[in-house]
Amino acid sequence: MTVELISVGTELLLGNIVNTNANYLSKKCAILGLSLFYQITVGDNKDRLESVLSQALSRSDILIITGGLGPTQDDITKETVAKVLKRELILDEESKQRIKNYFYQFHSKKSTDDKDPVEIISENNWKQALKIDGSIVIDNHNGTAPGYIVEDSGKVVILLPGPPNELIPMVEDAIFPYLKKLQDKVFVTKMVKVCGIGESRAETKVLDLIEGQGNPTIAPYAKSGEVHFRITASAENQEEAERLIEPVIEEFYHRFGDNIYTISEEETLEEVVVKLLKKKQYSLVTAESCTAGLLSARLVNVPGISGIFNEGFTTYSNQAKVKHLGVKEETLEKYGAVSPQTAKEMAEGAALRTNSDTALAITGIAGPGGGTEEKPVGLVYISCYVRGETLVKECYFKGSRQKVREQSVINALDLLRRSLLNSDY
Amino acid sequence: MTVELISVGTELLLGNIVNTNANYLSKKCAILGLSLFYQITVGDNKDRLESVLSQALSRSDILIITGGLGPTQDDITKETVAKVLKRELILDEESKQRIKNYFYQFHSKKSTDDKDPVEIISENNWKQALKIDGSIVIDNHNGTAPGYIVEDSGKVVILLPGPPNELIPMVEDAIFPYLKKLQDKVFVTKMVKVCGIGESRAETKVLDLIEGQGNPTIAPYAKSGEVHFRITASAENQEEAERLIEPVIEEFYHRFGDNIYTISEEETLEEVVVKLLKKKQYSLVTAESCTAGLLSARLVNVPGISGIFNEGFTTYSNQAKVKHLGVKEETLEKYGAVSPQTAKEMAEGAALRTNSDTALAITGIAGPGGGTEEKPVGLVYISCYVRGETLVKECYFKGSRQKVREQSVINALDLLRRSLLNSDY
Repeated sequence: MTVELISVGTELLLGNIVNTNANYLSKKCAILGLSLFYQITVGDNKDRLESVLSQALSRSDILIITGGLGPTQDDITKETVAKVLKRELILDEESKQRIKNYFYQFHSKKSTDDKDPVEIISENNWKQALKIDGSIVIDNHNGTAPGYIVEDSGKVVILLPGPPNELIPMVEDAIFPYLKKLQDKVFVTKMVKVCGIGESRAETKVLDLIEGQGNPTIAPYAKSGEVHFRITASAENQEEAERLIEPVIEEFYHRFGDNIYTISEEETLEEVVVKLLKKKQYSLVTAESCTAGLLSARLVNVPGISGIFNEGFTTYSNQAKVKHLGVKEETLEKYGAVSPQTAKEMAEGAALRTNSDTALAITGIAGPGGGTEEKPVGLVYISCYVRGETLVKECYFKGSRQKVREQSVINALDLLRRSLLNSDY
Repeated sequence: MTVELISVGTELLLGNIVNTNANYLSKKCAILGLSLFYQITVGDNKDRLESVLSQALSRSDILIITGGLGPTQDDITKETVAKVLKRELILDEESKQRIKNYFYQFHSKKSTDDKDPVEIISENNWKQALKIDGSIVIDNHNGTAPGYIVEDSGKVVILLPGPPNELIPMVEDAIFPYLKKLQDKVFVTKMVKVCGIGESRAETKVLDLIEGQGNPTIAPYAKSGEVHFRITASAENQEEAERLIEPVIEEFYHRFGDNIYTISEEETLEEVVVKLLKKKQYSLVTAESCTAGLLSARLVNVPGISGIFNEGFTTYSNQAKVKHLGVKEETLEKYGAVSPQTAKEMAEGAALRTNSDTALAITGIAGPGGGTEEKPVGLVYISCYVRGETLVKECYFKGSRQKVREQSVINALDLLRRSLLNSDY
């Protein structure tokens, strides 16, 4: 079955927002093995939307349309789809009640961005209680515009609201399961997440597998400092799909070894690190120069980290490195702030002063200025201390100031992860 | 003139990458007053690309096509455009030399992601030295694939490489000026950046201006905790455009006052804060609990900040707040870690202990857990110390853990900005 994505909204054509919905929905289609051939973005214009819809219906089996379901005059998606499918719009009592409840709930919440609820629940909102005749209504728990599924002469037309915080839960709860049922196959998907190895080198390592892919399929997703590979197997049943995916996962482990930090879609690198720390009941302290808090901020992405991670130092100046971490003035003078010696003393000093089991330190030249022939922009030293043992890693990162800093954080987390995996203490 | 954007690449259809190019190019078109009616994404498939190109040529004046210019077999954009325009591909000697030079330069650079250059400079790369007959070649200083402009029977077809770090400089240097020249008008654009006020409230304040817009045009761009308004005036000449834009900017200042932190496209909130600090020669220290380094990391986005920002504390645990910042145990016991009293002591303690002129402290409940009836998720206290005076702001933020933390950072920066603006010390 083929899918066509249609994003409706002049704000997309003006570049006011990035179309992350298209990306999200494309991924979901890929997981389900649905062939997505076209993504179209069109403005809030009846004629152009009508022609886009007609063309899509003529060449694709499933249309997923996002945006234009709101209460304003500009929101024309439902009306236009109804027209193209030659169906009426009728009042849906349940939707009407739901909209009422939503405003009621909204009104009772504290908010820094107070709107007058009377002002919001205008006549326009009832427009959102109209449904396309014969359609399945998909509840929206995070907004007032419901979604719809229309089955029409062998085609499926799905309408979803534009805001991602409304769209994503509706897809997860209702649309994805619906599309899955349309398929006569079962899909099993794993996300092999690799770090500590350059993007192109990682892809080269499995190029033969990617190029020779069949079932399972293999799709690489490059992220800053990481590479993710989505492996998807399809089969008649769960067991068969698992049987198909297993040897491919094994082959990835064979090639990447402990560069793979998880094969779970949801799990992040910081979560893996925190899990390892919790298992050993080790505390962690951070000492950051060029990253200046990016590492500690990322660790705190993991809720419930207190007890493991209690404190961190941003020591941007030399003086701060001496004062807060006990880095020796001689070390800074002799080797400089960006040196393996300074990195080591930062990690060890942070651990000592906070009585922590483990410590991560980062010092480097993020650019754009500050580079020399000997110490170019992108040179970063990462030090990892685990219970009396200290490692230092020298890295040369490419890219912008931001990229260098992001890669530093990922490599620091990865260094700690490996140290914890390999430690028998 | 009407524009159609065509993004070529199966990786976009699989959701492997987000189409940020479409967003970037749409913005550029909006600035130039070009009407963009369609954005199309299509895979690396000759037939489908051909049909998309033919349709676009039939309904739009300018086609901007991105992606598919690389050296692999999958890269078919140039060949397919040539076919649709019925033109030949011919060897471009300059491009050939440029590709050689690029590899030479690449080879001499240090890299953590070493590829064998002999392996890379394969026969395929010379494919990139072919140009569409009669086209203008646009040099690529960050990669091997040049861009092309083809003028054909009153239409313009522009081909650009997909990687943003190659595409963006080419657009800035060559494509934007080219498109500007096609216009008989001059455009002046300002970005009014507003913070410290909720998104919907901000938009409501200027809704009448947005709805009644003509020349200048007004486009709102919502960002986490900020709202940006792009104001674009077009006229016969620069002077006239400036004359048109001035009263609108004035009206924005009238309505938003010092919620506007800049009207420059490039300037960020952290840059404005750092500029104010530098002007007064004030140093800044940070003390962060729930944001855990996000604020300090953001400050260090500004290169050359050392001297102004030297150090920061991530004090996630109560104990760390006591130890590093001198927050009183009684304060924590009596009022809790998330309280105006704790926020105040964090800021004052950080300033005192580091002998800094200014300090920012953040403590709050980012969620998803940890909220109570009295102190719900999203409650954040921000404290700003400037030379003996301390302010505390109570905020209720909506959204995910990440959103709450991002909004905290922006509001902290904004609080310092206002304090510095209003301080006569």
